[in-house]
Amino acid sequence: MPERAIGIFDSGVGGLTVLRELRSQIPDEPLVYLGDTARVPYGTKSSSTVLRYAHEAARFLLDQRVKFLVVACNTASAVALNGLAERYQVPVIGVIEPGARRALEVTRNGRIGVIGTEGTIRSGAYERALLAGRSDVVVHAAACPLFVPLAEEGWACHEVARLAAHAYLAPLLQKKIDTLVLGCTHYPLLKQMLQEVVGPDVRLVDSAQATAKAVASRLGEYRLLCQTTPAPLPRYFVTDIPDRFKRVGGAFLGKELHGVETVSLD
Amino acid sequence: MPERAIGIFDSGVGGLTVLRELRSQIPDEPLVYLGDTARVPYGTKSSSTVLRYAHEAARFLLDQRVKFLVVACNTASAVALNGLAERYQVPVIGVIEPGARRALEVTRNGRIGVIGTEGTIRSGAYERALLAGRSDVVVHAAACPLFVPLAEEGWACHEVARLAAHAYLAPLLQKKIDTLVLGCTHYPLLKQMLQEVVGPDVRLVDSAQATAKAVASRLGEYRLLCQTTPAPLPRYFVTDIPDRFKRVGGAFLGKELHGVETVSLD
Repeated sequence: MPERAIGIFDSGVGGLTVLRELRSQIPDEPLVYLGDTARVPYGTKSSSTVLRYAHEAARFLLDQRVKFLVVACNTASAVALNGLAERYQVPVIGVIEPGARRALEVTRNGRIGVIGTEGTIRSGAYERALLAGRSDVVVHAAACPLFVPLAEEGWACHEVARLAAHAYLAPLLQKKIDTLVLGCTHYPLLKQMLQEVVGPDVRLVDSAQATAKAVASRLGEYRLLCQTTPAPLPRYFVTDIPDRFKRVGGAFLGKELHGVETVSLD
Repeated sequence: MPERAIGIFDSGVGGLTVLRELRSQIPDEPLVYLGDTARVPYGTKSSSTVLRYAHEAARFLLDQRVKFLVVACNTASAVALNGLAERYQVPVIGVIEPGARRALEVTRNGRIGVIGTEGTIRSGAYERALLAGRSDVVVHAAACPLFVPLAEEGWACHEVARLAAHAYLAPLLQKKIDTLVLGCTHYPLLKQMLQEVVGPDVRLVDSAQATAKAVASRLGEYRLLCQTTPAPLPRYFVTDIPDRFKRVGGAFLGKELHGVETVSLD
């Protein structure tokens, strides 16, 4: 089992920020990534639709005989994680729980902001995870639908992104949050600009980093850490043709993407 | 046949700008609208994927016994129109040909700008349609991926939209275009702001308006104009749950949306 790969899935390229963190934190692990690029984005779709897509993605990765499943998509984590964990035999981890836990560690005043897609915010999943961990925190959430296209456009530091960030974050800053959870796997690309907009007194929580840390710790717990080195290069599967995934994803990873195959889930 | 409905389809809410124009130009026609909201957007997906989706949508509308098919989605028009027109028995019209024809009517200096989604622009469909009509025009195209989320966010006149428009359109204005085709059914919502950004000397071509005009004329030609009045209210079908479609679509139509049903295409 340990020599098997970790399966990671997302609606598109965003989950590559989690893959990047996994590569950096546990470089010996073989990785298989699935981006459902024919149906991206999940963030504006209903829970029942996202649930169906998540099960299809999980089944595909299990067919690749993965030892561990990372739902590297906030929307899918919000609506499908429990169902996936119940149905399948491998350990399943999402991005919400680790991000929420990290936010509870770093907040001092107990006022936590959460930003994400419409679907993630509407689900209230971060709020539930945060309040389950510590019932006296106050959570202020905001959907930021423009951040994903801004990140994919390569406009992370563009004045347009800065202005949008001011518009989205002003209400949260008024509530005196001291911690802001980046509740979407695209947002780490905007981190520098977001830090400038919120100022040095607000700590940003990168759920991609927190998730990779949680995966490493769970793999150790289950004695699933890979002993063979070096790890092969990650394998990438997408549901649409790979051109755009390679181009935008390459920018996400900071290097060229190779070995991307198209598969059908529906 | 004439009493049958016109079938309109789009990847999501954008095609409602075409439906609105049809309602205004030929108010007696029964209309059936299909928005493929579970798989929106098409603009970032490959031609082969969009082609498959377009055929599924067309088959659904033909099952509703429509007399005429309007592909109210620029991306689907760009890649699927010929295939649809060949395969099915009803007349099929897209949004590109009418928009291009109108642009050729209004340009004086022969320099025409086209804006749309990545998929539409990459397809080169407007350029081909414009050059087929008049070989001496010069076409300058730009993909504007942020405009759809800006329109759906209700930020049509927000400073963020204005700044993005300046960034996207500056290269076209430098080329001295005198006509700008809004090559995406979402863009009529941004029309006022775009007109301010390009200035009074550039004529905007609204392909939704041009398409409705072309539909009216083709219906007359084929003797398919409906004789019975008043028309029933339009019927709406979507592939995801209708909440978001109703909310965003209501803003597109300027009135509440009723009678929205969820259906499955795949």
